[in-house]
Amino acid sequence: MSDGDEFALIAKHFAPLARDPAARGLIDDAALLNMQGAAVITADAIVEGVHFVPDDPIETIAQKALRVNISDIVAKGAASAHYLLTLQWPKNRPSTEIAGFAAGLARDQETFGCTLLGGDTTSTPGPLAVSVTMFGRPLGVSTPSRAGANVGDDVWVTGAIGDGLLGLKALTEGLALAAPHVAHVVARYRTPTPRVALAATVAAFASASMDVSDGLLGDAMKIATASAVRIVIDPYRVPLSDAGAAWLDAQPNRAVARGALLNGGDDYEILFTAAPSKRARILEATDDAGVPLTRIGSVVAGQGVDAGDLPVGGHVHRLGA
Amino acid sequence: MSDGDEFALIAKHFAPLARDPAARGLIDDAALLNMQGAAVITADAIVEGVHFVPDDPIETIAQKALRVNISDIVAKGAASAHYLLTLQWPKNRPSTEIAGFAAGLARDQETFGCTLLGGDTTSTPGPLAVSVTMFGRPLGVSTPSRAGANVGDDVWVTGAIGDGLLGLKALTEGLALAAPHVAHVVARYRTPTPRVALAATVAAFASASMDVSDGLLGDAMKIATASAVRIVIDPYRVPLSDAGAAWLDAQPNRAVARGALLNGGDDYEILFTAAPSKRARILEATDDAGVPLTRIGSVVAGQGVDAGDLPVGGHVHRLGA
Repeated sequence: MSDGDEFALIAKHFAPLARDPAARGLIDDAALLNMQGAAVITADAIVEGVHFVPDDPIETIAQKALRVNISDIVAKGAASAHYLLTLQWPKNRPSTEIAGFAAGLARDQETFGCTLLGGDTTSTPGPLAVSVTMFGRPLGVSTPSRAGANVGDDVWVTGAIGDGLLGLKALTEGLALAAPHVAHVVARYRTPTPRVALAATVAAFASASMDVSDGLLGDAMKIATASAVRIVIDPYRVPLSDAGAAWLDAQPNRAVARGALLNGGDDYEILFTAAPSKRARILEATDDAGVPLTRIGSVVAGQGVDAGDLPVGGHVHRLGA
Repeated sequence: MSDGDEFALIAKHFAPLARDPAARGLIDDAALLNMQGAAVITADAIVEGVHFVPDDPIETIAQKALRVNISDIVAKGAASAHYLLTLQWPKNRPSTEIAGFAAGLARDQETFGCTLLGGDTTSTPGPLAVSVTMFGRPLGVSTPSRAGANVGDDVWVTGAIGDGLLGLKALTEGLALAAPHVAHVVARYRTPTPRVALAATVAAFASASMDVSDGLLGDAMKIATASAVRIVIDPYRVPLSDAGAAWLDAQPNRAVARGALLNGGDDYEILFTAAPSKRARILEATDDAGVPLTRIGSVVAGQGVDAGDLPVGGHVHRLGA
């Protein structure tokens, strides 16, 4: 796409997404953002053939690019506010799809309350790639890192684990599951659900927190390492969706299968630790917010992750990996 | 590259670049930046085979990714301070080059006074791509956009125009020029020079400003359109480097050749407008700063760009375009 085409496409489809005056209507080369106090800032890119399947709908590709970043913001106890986007658009992908891409962004801006600040579109001889830098407003006085877990803390996780892996399998290998289960895991892979209603609870109570993007157990290891503690997870308490449970039931070796689910990527749930004294208030807050939350383990002295007989981390099942 | 390799490489090579505590040593999923007042924010990506040549040195690829963004910050009268980076690393490019990439970033962090805040590295089946989001501190009370040019203003440009195009030609077609001239234009293509010493002058005096990345005349058209004015440029006043002048002298059709230089991309000079009453103070400030600056035209009523008999904009000579 030539720069002239780019300029016209941005003006037409992206300018309406830039509702904050800070974005200067996208006709300038930079945004001018007046930030009061601290901002939580994260940047993640998704690449065709790595983080999404080439024939995923263009709308959900846009949504996934935003959601993986919003998930990071939520895990830090913050609310997404603004984002910049650099889009690498393949020469051989019809530019008519740009409208659908913008529609996906527009839908998620509504859902998650963030607006486009700026960015850049360029052509590429390679795969479609979308890089997003997301800004969030902290919802509490603390912004939990990976490094704050204390011995004695509970370990919590939102939602269900393993659907991301199963969604990828459904799209690449096929899954022998009932159609509603297949639809569920594909939707979870394509459009993960950032647990925005949990962000204030994380800000108020979490000692350490991160989002689960590279597999629950491997990500738990990152908290254990950063916090210099050992994390003990009961693999049988890790929540599965109905689809995940049905898939597990059908596997010849359930221990191996459970290990795959707990080490699969693309779940975008929130994994956090908190003192047991906060347990009642955490459950009350998440019940009010309607976010499914499960206590799956505890923090002890030592290092590493103990998940019974399951392997921890290692090879994350990814497209093209 | 697996996520484990990525984590190890980031820790080893990128963590030393993250000197601001806001970056949390890159071991967290987000940065926590305390911003006082307004921030100028821009995001630009560069892609192998589009914005740089596949066998460009890995150090200069890293530097170019930073510099094209710093150039945008400078054009807004601001000083670069922090950046996030998402790196798409091809599966078939040796990961040993990551050290050189980080070395290029480190060198430019020193030169331009900015530090790494965070980001993400992912593998890609496609070309190397580097997306940078850069934050700057405004150096004056105003942050000029493209839209502020007034009838009667002077039009100014820094440095020399056309070297980016000639550098690309040298790398892709070869150039029949003396070796020092070839070296000059190749260096200008690979490592453009953001005019940081001009940023305070832009903040103090510019009515409209942008950096020249897509060709001088086409970029002047963007200011004319945003400001609803006509920009008259004397093409014979547009500064060329010695290399550019030597190349022009050797061309059979000099009007066509001059048009190519003035519409070539990748110059990363600053194009700005300012009231004639500021002329003496602008020249004094840029003379003090040692930035070459040339008055090349004026703003009049109307629309579009008048560059004598030269074409304006259109096809920008780019790799793969």
